[in-house]
Amino acid sequence: MRRTPSRLSDGREIIYFDRDGAPPRTAVDERGLDEGAAIGEVRYDVMTGEWIAIAGHRQTRTHLPAASECPLCPTVDGRLSEIPESSYDVVVFENRFPSLRAPEGEWELPEPGLDAVAPAAGRCEVVCFSADHDGSFTKLTPAQARLVIDAWTDRTAALSALPYVRQVFPFENRGVEIGVTLHHPHGQIYGYSYLPPRIVRLIEQDRSHRARGRRGLIADVIAREAADGRRLVFRSQHWIAFVPFAARWPFEVQLHPLRAGVHDFTELTDAERDELATVYPRLLRAFDALLGVTMPYVAGWFQAPCNGPADERDAVTLHLQLQSNRRAPNKLKYPAGSEMSMWAYISDVPPEQSAQLLREAWERA
Amino acid sequence: MRRTPSRLSDGREIIYFDRDGAPPRTAVDERGLDEGAAIGEVRYDVMTGEWIAIAGHRQTRTHLPAASECPLCPTVDGRLSEIPESSYDVVVFENRFPSLRAPEGEWELPEPGLDAVAPAAGRCEVVCFSADHDGSFTKLTPAQARLVIDAWTDRTAALSALPYVRQVFPFENRGVEIGVTLHHPHGQIYGYSYLPPRIVRLIEQDRSHRARGRRGLIADVIAREAADGRRLVFRSQHWIAFVPFAARWPFEVQLHPLRAGVHDFTELTDAERDELATVYPRLLRAFDALLGVTMPYVAGWFQAPCNGPADERDAVTLHLQLQSNRRAPNKLKYPAGSEMSMWAYISDVPPEQSAQLLREAWERA
Repeated sequence: MRRTPSRLSDGREIIYFDRDGAPPRTAVDERGLDEGAAIGEVRYDVMTGEWIAIAGHRQTRTHLPAASECPLCPTVDGRLSEIPESSYDVVVFENRFPSLRAPEGEWELPEPGLDAVAPAAGRCEVVCFSADHDGSFTKLTPAQARLVIDAWTDRTAALSALPYVRQVFPFENRGVEIGVTLHHPHGQIYGYSYLPPRIVRLIEQDRSHRARGRRGLIADVIAREAADGRRLVFRSQHWIAFVPFAARWPFEVQLHPLRAGVHDFTELTDAERDELATVYPRLLRAFDALLGVTMPYVAGWFQAPCNGPADERDAVTLHLQLQSNRRAPNKLKYPAGSEMSMWAYISDVPPEQSAQLLREAWERA
Repeated sequence: MRRTPSRLSDGREIIYFDRDGAPPRTAVDERGLDEGAAIGEVRYDVMTGEWIAIAGHRQTRTHLPAASECPLCPTVDGRLSEIPESSYDVVVFENRFPSLRAPEGEWELPEPGLDAVAPAAGRCEVVCFSADHDGSFTKLTPAQARLVIDAWTDRTAALSALPYVRQVFPFENRGVEIGVTLHHPHGQIYGYSYLPPRIVRLIEQDRSHRARGRRGLIADVIAREAADGRRLVFRSQHWIAFVPFAARWPFEVQLHPLRAGVHDFTELTDAERDELATVYPRLLRAFDALLGVTMPYVAGWFQAPCNGPADERDAVTLHLQLQSNRRAPNKLKYPAGSEMSMWAYISDVPPEQSAQLLREAWERA
C-alpha cells in the first residue's frame, strides 16, 4: 500500500491509498475554493443526557447530483471534482460540508446542564471506495477492499491522535431509501468530540456486566452466539457474524473478530485484515441476495473510544453493525411513533428467521 | 360526552366516544372473526440495556388499502369494517395486529441478562379521530378534538389500571413519508409492559437534576424556555409550546401544560382540556403551513409511568413531542449512519430559526 497525502485548494487534507505500482498522485486542485464553512454547535439535551450537533450551514450541501456532476469521480476531461487526480484506487478527504470540524484553539466539552453548548468540534472525512461511479463495496476485489481497510486503519490512528476526538466512526450509508445523497460508492468517517449515546450505553452495560463478576460483555455475547448457533450467519477463521438476539431492524448483522480484545482497526493483524477483505464484501453481497433487491443499509464500525479512561476503552471492541430498513422487497421499516418518540423498537422479523435467510444468502453470495 | 363500550366478533374491546345526542351505538360486528394473533416476545438487548419487542405475526397486516377497503371507516352499504356502526364521532378499539397484548395468567418482566425474554405483554389500541376518511386532526372542530382528548383520558385511566402496563403512550403517525399504512385519520395508544428507553433516560436525568438540589427537570426546562423566548412558538392561558434547545429533527415542538405536576391526561382540568382542543389542532395546522406542504409527523404524548415507584412517576409530566422528518419542501431528513448506528443526531436547522418559522406559521394557522 502506498499513501500519498496532499491538500485541496481550500486547505482540506486529501490522502490517496494506492496499490504498489499505481501512478504517482501529484495533481493539483485547480478550483481555487474559498475557505470552508463555519463551525456548528453541540448542545446538551438535558431531557435525555445526549449531545446533539446543530449544523445550520449544511442545508445547501450537494443533493443527488447527475452522474456527470459527481464530486467523487476523478477529475477527467477538465471537469474539476473533489479529487484532482484522473484516477485513484481509494481516496480519503475532509468533507466540504462537515457537521464537525477542528475547533479554534483550546477546546473542552462543557459540563452537562440546561444551557450547555460548545463549538461542534470533531472531524468529518469522506472515503471513496473506488473511482468507478457505478461501483459498489459488494463488487470490490479483496485487494481493493484491503485498501479500504488500510485507509480505515490509517484514519483511525490519525483521528485518535487529535486531542478533541473521543470516538472514530467509519461508516457507509447506501441507498436512497436511507437518505444517501451521492451515488458514487463511498463511506464516511466521523471523529466525534463526545461519546455517541450508543457508545455510552455499551460502556454502562459493560460496567454492570463486569460488576457481576463476568468478563467483558462483548466477549460473552460472542461466546453465547457461537455456542447457540441459531442466529449465526457465518464463522470463518478470524471472524464471526450473527444476527443480534434482540435485533431492532428486520435485517441486522454484527460482525466481530474472533480474537478478544481488539479495540479498533489499528490492532488487527494482517491475517485478520486479509480475511476481512474477503468476508465483508461477501456479507454485503449476501444482504443483496436476501430479497432479490439491492438493500439500503447503514454499515457502522464500532471502535473503542479514544482520549478517555482505560475502562471505557476496554468496554468496546471493534465490530461492524450492519442494519437495513427494508423489511420486504416492496416495504420499508419506518422508525415511527414507538421508535421515534419513545425509542422503543418493535421488530416484525424474528432474529432466528432472518439469520436462516442470511445463512442461505451467504452460501449463494 | 357519552361512552359506549362493546365487543368485536373476536372478543376485542371497542368503545365509542360520542357527543351527547348522537345516535345510540348498538350495531353488532357480523364478520365472525377468528380469535386474534399469538403474543410476541420482548427481548433484552444486553449491549444497550433496552427491551425490544419482536412481533413476527404482524408482517401480513393491512398495508395502504384502497379507500373503499378502509378498515377504519364506518360500516356502510354492507361493507363490514372494524367499526360495526354506520357512523361515529370518535372510536377506540383494540388493534387486530397488536405488537403487545394481554399476557396469559401472572406476568412479570424478567431480570435483565444475556438471555432475558418474556411474552410481549401490553396493549395496543387504535383511536379513530373522525368517521371522515379524508379528514385530519388539523380539521377537527374544538368539540371533536375535545372528544379525542376525552378518549385519551379514558384510555390512560383504563390502561394504567392493567397491572402489566408501565407506560401509556397515545400517539399519531401521519404521512406515508413516516411509514403510515392507513390513511384514515387515526392514532394509536400503546400500553408498554416495560419503560421505553426515552422514559428511562428522562427519569435518570430528572434524578440527577434533583440530586443537585433543583426542582423537577421538566419544570425547569419550561421556565427556561418561557424566560428565554427565542424558541417559543406560543403561550396561551394554560399551555406553552417551544422548540427544544437541542432539537434532533428539523421541525420539532414540545407542548406542555403551564401548571406544574400534571402527570397524565387524567389530571388535566376541564379548562385545560378545552383549551388544548383549540391549540393542539392549530399547532398541527401551523406545522402544515410551515413549508406549504402537508407535513409528515409523529405526535407522541409523554405521560408519567404507572405501576412503579413514586419518584419515577414524579419525573415525567404530561407533554407532547411533535417531530417531523421533513427538512425542506422536497427533502426528508433520514436517520442514517450517525443516528441509526451511533444514535448521535446531527440537525441541519438551528432551533431558533425553526421557532421563528413556527411562530409565523402559528399566526397564520
